[in-house]
Amino acid sequence: MTSTKHRIGIVGATGYTGEELIRLVCKHPAVTLAYATSESSAGKRLEEIYPWLNQYGEHRLISSHQIAEKDADIVFTCLPAGETASLASDLLQKGIKIIDLGADFRFRSANLYAQWYQTKHPHPDLLQKSVYGLPEWNREQIRAAAIVGNPGCYPTSILLALLPLIKSNLLGTGLLFIDSKSGVTGAGKTPTPTSHFCSANENLTAYKPGRTHRHVGEIETILQQQNKGCKVVFTPHLIPMNRGLFSTLYVPLAKDVDRATVHASFEQFYKNEPFVKPVDIIPSTNMVIHTNYCFIHVGNRYDDTIQLFSAIDNLGKGASWQAIQNMNLLLGLDEETGLQP
Amino acid sequence: MTSTKHRIGIVGATGYTGEELIRLVCKHPAVTLAYATSESSAGKRLEEIYPWLNQYGEHRLISSHQIAEKDADIVFTCLPAGETASLASDLLQKGIKIIDLGADFRFRSANLYAQWYQTKHPHPDLLQKSVYGLPEWNREQIRAAAIVGNPGCYPTSILLALLPLIKSNLLGTGLLFIDSKSGVTGAGKTPTPTSHFCSANENLTAYKPGRTHRHVGEIETILQQQNKGCKVVFTPHLIPMNRGLFSTLYVPLAKDVDRATVHASFEQFYKNEPFVKPVDIIPSTNMVIHTNYCFIHVGNRYDDTIQLFSAIDNLGKGASWQAIQNMNLLLGLDEETGLQP
Amino acid sequence: MTSTKHRIGIVGATGYTGEELIRLVCKHPAVTLAYATSESSAGKRLEEIYPWLNQYGEHRLISSHQIAEKDADIVFTCLPAGETASLASDLLQKGIKIIDLGADFRFRSANLYAQWYQTKHPHPDLLQKSVYGLPEWNREQIRAAAIVGNPGCYPTSILLALLPLIKSNLLGTGLLFIDSKSGVTGAGKTPTPTSHFCSANENLTAYKPGRTHRHVGEIETILQQQNKGCKVVFTPHLIPMNRGLFSTLYVPLAKDVDRATVHASFEQFYKNEPFVKPVDIIPSTNMVIHTNYCFIHVGNRYDDTIQLFSAIDNLGKGASWQAIQNMNLLLGLDEETGLQP
Amino acid sequence: MTSTKHRIGIVGATGYTGEELIRLVCKHPAVTLAYATSESSAGKRLEEIYPWLNQYGEHRLISSHQIAEKDADIVFTCLPAGETASLASDLLQKGIKIIDLGADFRFRSANLYAQWYQTKHPHPDLLQKSVYGLPEWNREQIRAAAIVGNPGCYPTSILLALLPLIKSNLLGTGLLFIDSKSGVTGAGKTPTPTSHFCSANENLTAYKPGRTHRHVGEIETILQQQNKGCKVVFTPHLIPMNRGLFSTLYVPLAKDVDRATVHASFEQFYKNEPFVKPVDIIPSTNMVIHTNYCFIHVGNRYDDTIQLFSAIDNLGKGASWQAIQNMNLLLGLDEETGLQP
Repeated sequence: MTSTKHRIGIVGATGYTGEELIRLVCKHPAVTLAYATSESSAGKRLEEIYPWLNQYGEHRLISSHQIAEKDADIVFTCLPAGETASLASDLLQKGIKIIDLGADFRFRSANLYAQWYQTKHPHPDLLQKSVYGLPEWNREQIRAAAIVGNPGCYPTSILLALLPLIKSNLLGTGLLFIDSKSGVTGAGKTPTPTSHFCSANENLTAYKPGRTHRHVGEIETILQQQNKGCKVVFTPHLIPMNRGLFSTLYVPLAKDVDRATVHASFEQFYKNEPFVKPVDIIPSTNMVIHTNYCFIHVGNRYDDTIQLFSAIDNLGKGASWQAIQNMNLLLGLDEETGLQP
Repeated sequence: MTSTKHRIGIVGATGYTGEELIRLVCKHPAVTLAYATSESSAGKRLEEIYPWLNQYGEHRLISSHQIAEKDADIVFTCLPAGETASLASDLLQKGIKIIDLGADFRFRSANLYAQWYQTKHPHPDLLQKSVYGLPEWNREQIRAAAIVGNPGCYPTSILLALLPLIKSNLLGTGLLFIDSKSGVTGAGKTPTPTSHFCSANENLTAYKPGRTHRHVGEIETILQQQNKGCKVVFTPHLIPMNRGLFSTLYVPLAKDVDRATVHASFEQFYKNEPFVKPVDIIPSTNMVIHTNYCFIHVGNRYDDTIQLFSAIDNLGKGASWQAIQNMNLLLGLDEETGLQP
Repeated sequence: MTSTKHRIGIVGATGYTGEELIRLVCKHPAVTLAYATSESSAGKRLEEIYPWLNQYGEHRLISSHQIAEKDADIVFTCLPAGETASLASDLLQKGIKIIDLGADFRFRSANLYAQWYQTKHPHPDLLQKSVYGLPEWNREQIRAAAIVGNPGCYPTSILLALLPLIKSNLLGTGLLFIDSKSGVTGAGKTPTPTSHFCSANENLTAYKPGRTHRHVGEIETILQQQNKGCKVVFTPHLIPMNRGLFSTLYVPLAKDVDRATVHASFEQFYKNEPFVKPVDIIPSTNMVIHTNYCFIHVGNRYDDTIQLFSAIDNLGKGASWQAIQNMNLLLGLDEETGLQP
Repeated sequence: MTSTKHRIGIVGATGYTGEELIRLVCKHPAVTLAYATSESSAGKRLEEIYPWLNQYGEHRLISSHQIAEKDADIVFTCLPAGETASLASDLLQKGIKIIDLGADFRFRSANLYAQWYQTKHPHPDLLQKSVYGLPEWNREQIRAAAIVGNPGCYPTSILLALLPLIKSNLLGTGLLFIDSKSGVTGAGKTPTPTSHFCSANENLTAYKPGRTHRHVGEIETILQQQNKGCKVVFTPHLIPMNRGLFSTLYVPLAKDVDRATVHASFEQFYKNEPFVKPVDIIPSTNMVIHTNYCFIHVGNRYDDTIQLFSAIDNLGKGASWQAIQNMNLLLGLDEETGLQP
């Protein structure tokens, strides 16, 4: 049966999203790991890096320069902004599909990319082949895409709380205030003064507030498809925990609807979704870590504003687990395959 | 010199605020611990509970029923809502001043107390003798008060970020969205499923959102002295750390003023305050824990809204250290005495 | 295919080991959850307690008094000492096998049980039907057992580091000094002052040192099968983390063998074991949490003492994952089924 | 009164020990900060680095190259091994005393230094002017020293648990097994993969076991003054907390004495010591963090071995607070000055 498994490549396998992908790919029943790359650890056995990967003990990490010789059906790319696009052409020419966990394919507009990432997009020609990989928004386009731009962690938690309002034309005009809180894996694996244990532990702060974080552009691109008058004020906070992402949203309503109507729009919108659940209580992040779930709670209305709460795992629905959901879509598999909590 | 020191009683000395008070009283140069009470630990030596209190090794905790026989100049009360008021009459009659770290004297209106605490105030007659103990707001009244109602932790962090707007008539009409985050000491010392290590650790959630937390009444009482049209939507979050409290505020402005004007109002308002500092960066809670500081950052303006950030130690400026500041005022001491970080 | 799945009952499903069992049973390919009991939550839907259990959303927790009416092939019992034995007779009579995660079947001797648990064993007649459930020691007996006494977390980490010495007759006479460190889930879910977040966090201590912890009896029962002259001095420490258990052992050697010989005995003993791995570096607990692995490192020799290091997940190989391994043995399944990291 | 205060320099003021020293010096009643150096932050105001240092707001950090122009009575040096010795000559010539928190003056023998630090001592001529700064061992010599070699954190916790045995000739021959556990500040402020929050959090491991950690030499130097036949097997563990250090010791006894006799030797030895307390329970690190205390518990005897437990703050008695205790000795002050918990 192994021979019929889909072959998966992972480029950038030793960051947090890469590690989580390896775990998920290794136990997924319908795929097999074709290769995994790491510039810093090329040549090492996977087991040296991830000792629990017994069954792949002899599998060796390669450099990304070696992937031209390798074959795969789908490649996950976990690279800094700007680095995936240059790999992508070669992969596409060989008929390999790409799921990019970086930022290069989260916009279809090179202008927007340039605006938010402060650099020219290296391959604007590829953007038309890409689809924003939020299945609850874009499922059919994802199935047919050559490149899937896997959403950012904050946008995932925020957009899933806003999609039902967009679809029901309930999203009002004006400022959305969004306060998000993320575990430290969201800040990446590179050791920095900020991510030092003694700095992050027993501490809390906000960073890149208002309209300075790149994820604002990603969020507004979707929102403004329904209402060009809405604008995001987004403030992320760094929390002393490894995983988990929580967003508290204050959102203007378009119409004079009550809380029950808003809640009903969520129930309706998500009734067939396997991974997004409107819940009756405010969720906590430990309900969703190590899963692909997003739990959303519709809070109360205050004047024209509705309060919403959303919890995901930043490495789960916010990154690698959602990437596997996208892989399942590309491969025509049941969307939940390999994603049981 | 000991004979000239002011005598301090602490009622409820084995909760988190009581413990912090004991530490501060023991090393304060102008006061001495007259007694400390604990119903659960009465009869035990202080050193059995707090082994580092060498110099008070033989000092024994007493029951609150024994304090009638004891003398003191000032008594700190750290009791659940409703329990302080019944002790207060006796203490006042003996000429003892009270600093209440509970909630019984945070409102001067028995109606407001009843509204937010869902119970009749047990001694409404005492309310006129009480002053809200936020020195930056009420300093002169505190000096002369018989009872000081020490503010709640969330209101302290929030009001200190709003007082300059109030004083400058910059606080606008409408909703203030306030997202606060607190360490777990804020939830008290009683073991509960929520405060279990394995529940609070690696986890994050919001609780009592919107207008359900009692601190909303405390905050609005002050705000509405300037602008009756403003209304607070307040959402506290529980963070996996022991100490520290951070508030992110989205506040409507009354006038068309720019960020620099708002910042200048903060500089002006706090220029002589020893414990509140407007800072140029977003503060983090580890800058203020184990201190009486509140650090505030004026963020950007978005339409008519200004963003503010405020950080305190919930047991510091948010409780026991602020209570010592109030004690210094009552005793005519330099306000910073015994409060060096 | 569901019809052919083995039916599993879980008695005491809302503690930490029960929760982990539910997770594992729900995604195990060869079994299905027949029932789960909880006295405090009987009547609630599983999803109310564990919101991520979508697929069992309508499954309701029952009281243990209701299990007489229910059928199952295997029942896991997660109960305090003394409580399982009284359920066991009824279950056995119905032909149901039992895997007990409590302490009632970790000794085959009622005397030893009485000595270490300070109470008479409630059903000494059942002890002969029980087997100590450490597959690396007892695999064939487990396959045939009616009752499996799943080992304690500390004994698992410690015995797996000692079995190769026992088998090779290398275990010397005299004191073994064993220093173990456990995450707080090991202390159970009941809220206590010790498990309060603010008490366990940023803190560390030792408890029940030397020969006072009940697990000493469990460890010595196995050791003394080879060498009656060895005696355990065992000191557990409580560490501010949720999961993970680490043991550092100082063990007398029987013979004048070098470190390489000892290491070789480990390689030999574990060469075909799927879940125990001698490793070349000192393991860390984050290598093994959420897995059934035990990683062991043979340290250096100092005079007649060899140092050993062992890491497991206290809820993994130390409890629920090992229980599933035992279930696989009872059911004649591949031992690794459902236990992929 | 400021004019009569002793002037203190701190070289290397922005590591963890330097930060703690600054805090202590700033609130010490008898000293004043003359200067503080930092190569990476020279020119910055102290308040930019430590925002709570209001009263030193305009004080600027300097480079260590500038200290020749500065005057001071005592200089604390917080530098990597090998770097202090080269500064020391110049300081001594100006009559300035040195308290070195690094390792350059912990041995009086250049050979031992070379053996444990794998490099030649840069100024062996200075060693005779240095004293090992453990006041409970060396108090009178410290008072008269030109250079105080402040002990390492592990040796402090371990030696304080062994000194009474040494003095009473109770320390036996053979191996001492010492298992120590330290918070992450003990590993220094430089960001590394090991100190990354997500690596240290929810994790635990041992490092440099047996006889590989440099602190072994420091410990044995003292021990072997009484008993040349004792040998240390020392294993440090890294614990997910900021501060705190706990040692569990298994120590051979020289004579057939019971536990009570050993305990009495501790009571006797420490009866007049302000900072070391034999306690009746196993201490926890949160009893001693942010203090200069060492709490020691004498455990049980097992055959010829006695178990001991010792808790300190690695930045307190294990580094900066002990350095202030040494400063008080050098200045002829009451030893507890400025060190109240």
